[in-house]
Amino acid sequence: MEDAPLPVVGVGIAIVSSFINGSTFVLQKKGILRARRSGRSYLSDCVWWCGTLAMIVGQIGNFLAHNAAPAVLVTPLGALGVLFGAILASLLLQEHLNMLGKLGCVLCCCGSFVLIIHSPKSEGVASSVEFEERLLDPVFLSYTALVVLLLIILIGWLSPAYGKSNIMVYVGICSLLGCFTVPSCKGLGLAAKDAFGGDAFTTDNRALYLFLCLLAVLLVSILIQFTFINKALENFSSNMFEAVYYVVFTSSVILASAILFKEWEALGILDCLGILCGFTTVCVGVVLLRISQEAVLTWIPSRTKEE
Amino acid sequence: MEDAPLPVVGVGIAIVSSFINGSTFVLQKKGILRARRSGRSYLSDCVWWCGTLAMIVGQIGNFLAHNAAPAVLVTPLGALGVLFGAILASLLLQEHLNMLGKLGCVLCCCGSFVLIIHSPKSEGVASSVEFEERLLDPVFLSYTALVVLLLIILIGWLSPAYGKSNIMVYVGICSLLGCFTVPSCKGLGLAAKDAFGGDAFTTDNRALYLFLCLLAVLLVSILIQFTFINKALENFSSNMFEAVYYVVFTSSVILASAILFKEWEALGILDCLGILCGFTTVCVGVVLLRISQEAVLTWIPSRTKEE
Repeated sequence: MEDAPLPVVGVGIAIVSSFINGSTFVLQKKGILRARRSGRSYLSDCVWWCGTLAMIVGQIGNFLAHNAAPAVLVTPLGALGVLFGAILASLLLQEHLNMLGKLGCVLCCCGSFVLIIHSPKSEGVASSVEFEERLLDPVFLSYTALVVLLLIILIGWLSPAYGKSNIMVYVGICSLLGCFTVPSCKGLGLAAKDAFGGDAFTTDNRALYLFLCLLAVLLVSILIQFTFINKALENFSSNMFEAVYYVVFTSSVILASAILFKEWEALGILDCLGILCGFTTVCVGVVLLRISQEAVLTWIPSRTKEE
Repeated sequence: MEDAPLPVVGVGIAIVSSFINGSTFVLQKKGILRARRSGRSYLSDCVWWCGTLAMIVGQIGNFLAHNAAPAVLVTPLGALGVLFGAILASLLLQEHLNMLGKLGCVLCCCGSFVLIIHSPKSEGVASSVEFEERLLDPVFLSYTALVVLLLIILIGWLSPAYGKSNIMVYVGICSLLGCFTVPSCKGLGLAAKDAFGGDAFTTDNRALYLFLCLLAVLLVSILIQFTFINKALENFSSNMFEAVYYVVFTSSVILASAILFKEWEALGILDCLGILCGFTTVCVGVVLLRISQEAVLTWIPSRTKEE
């Protein structure tokens, strides 16, 4: 990892790892279908293993991207994975991409580009000491307390009662946890650099503790997310869940990152509004892409012209 | 008209006149329905007259906007009229705006904003002499010759044969004529200023001839456009026609304006790409808004999870 990475590196990694993430499910499904046709287990299918490998590489890429570019930029670019997945599915699995899906693809590209040109160039946090200071900022602490409170209400009370009927309960839990996963990824990179990257044999204990804390937070929040994503997929259509999840998760991460890193302070009002427009466009694109796999357009028979 | 108008004035006029244009049909329809209910002629209904007045005011506003801001900016902002018309129709006529329509509205706003922040600030043509020079530029002359040739083919040959079956024939004719109407509007403003705006009793003859020529071109092209728009509306659904027409017409005007005014030369590559993304977003928004009035989403019954 370089000291002052160019955002272009981060953007590059983010785009490539989004593409790799997007190919995961398509490759795994292709492998499962191939294996079923020839009567073998999919564990012996190389395409399925490519998909699984892609998942690991994609997640590592995502982690690296979060360390090289602002979260406001990296997280929404995940939409390119949805786009790439849809195109790959229409090529490899012959899943027809209808007009709504195509419009969704176009919007994902346009919105991502607008996001890239308006997003902040760096988060301005360069060391684990600085990161720790930001973590202890009263505004961020109150925000964290609020998120934890909401999570307790959602997991303890709303999830058993309404989880199976209202998609927003599981989406809410997984999205709020994004407030911990994404900043942890970022902090882990900084803490690792300070804890292990100094002169040989001089380890910075404070940075090491921070590293271990963040690792624990990251693992716990990923585990809870994993549990509730699976619960959600059992009860709701995966396309609907992923569409709503993308929009709410990304918004939640952008909010957390804005409070933690205050990267907005360096931006003009036009850039902020540009980011908002780009992000909204990407969200509409993701929703259209997902809807296109669940619904078709039915033309209303022409009405009387008199009316 | 000021000498060096701020683009903010042009953008303001463009937005207001788009809104006024967008209200035209809704007000007229409301008037016709009201008159029919009470058994009167719609000519005695004040809401219908408001709609007709709005049409005139909107077109004058459009003309002024083209004289105060670049065509690349003013023409696509017409989308805000589609948006405003849809919202007004759902308020006044109780025409339900479904989810696709709402997404279309959001996209029109986001795309328009991106267009506004990236568009060139002025076209850099300040007098009728300069405008005349641009008109005689060999690139623009060859482009005009090509457009005239295409129009002759479309009107003389394709329109009688395929006009009633292929929507693109009438759309093509009306859009190509936009290459004449929009630059004429712009030129008329400049020529009028030089022809009539000098010291009292000293009229610039050259500018006067230019003014008359442009007025003739404008009137002829508006008349042909008017004829073919009506032919198209007789044969195709108005929503489909207007969606395709908006996209093709605006693209054609942007191309003509780019060749004539070369406003791109002053822009960076990022701004050009930003304009492209904003314009594409607006186009998708308009298409969704129009489609939403012709089609509904039908959910596909949940497929087997096994596949």
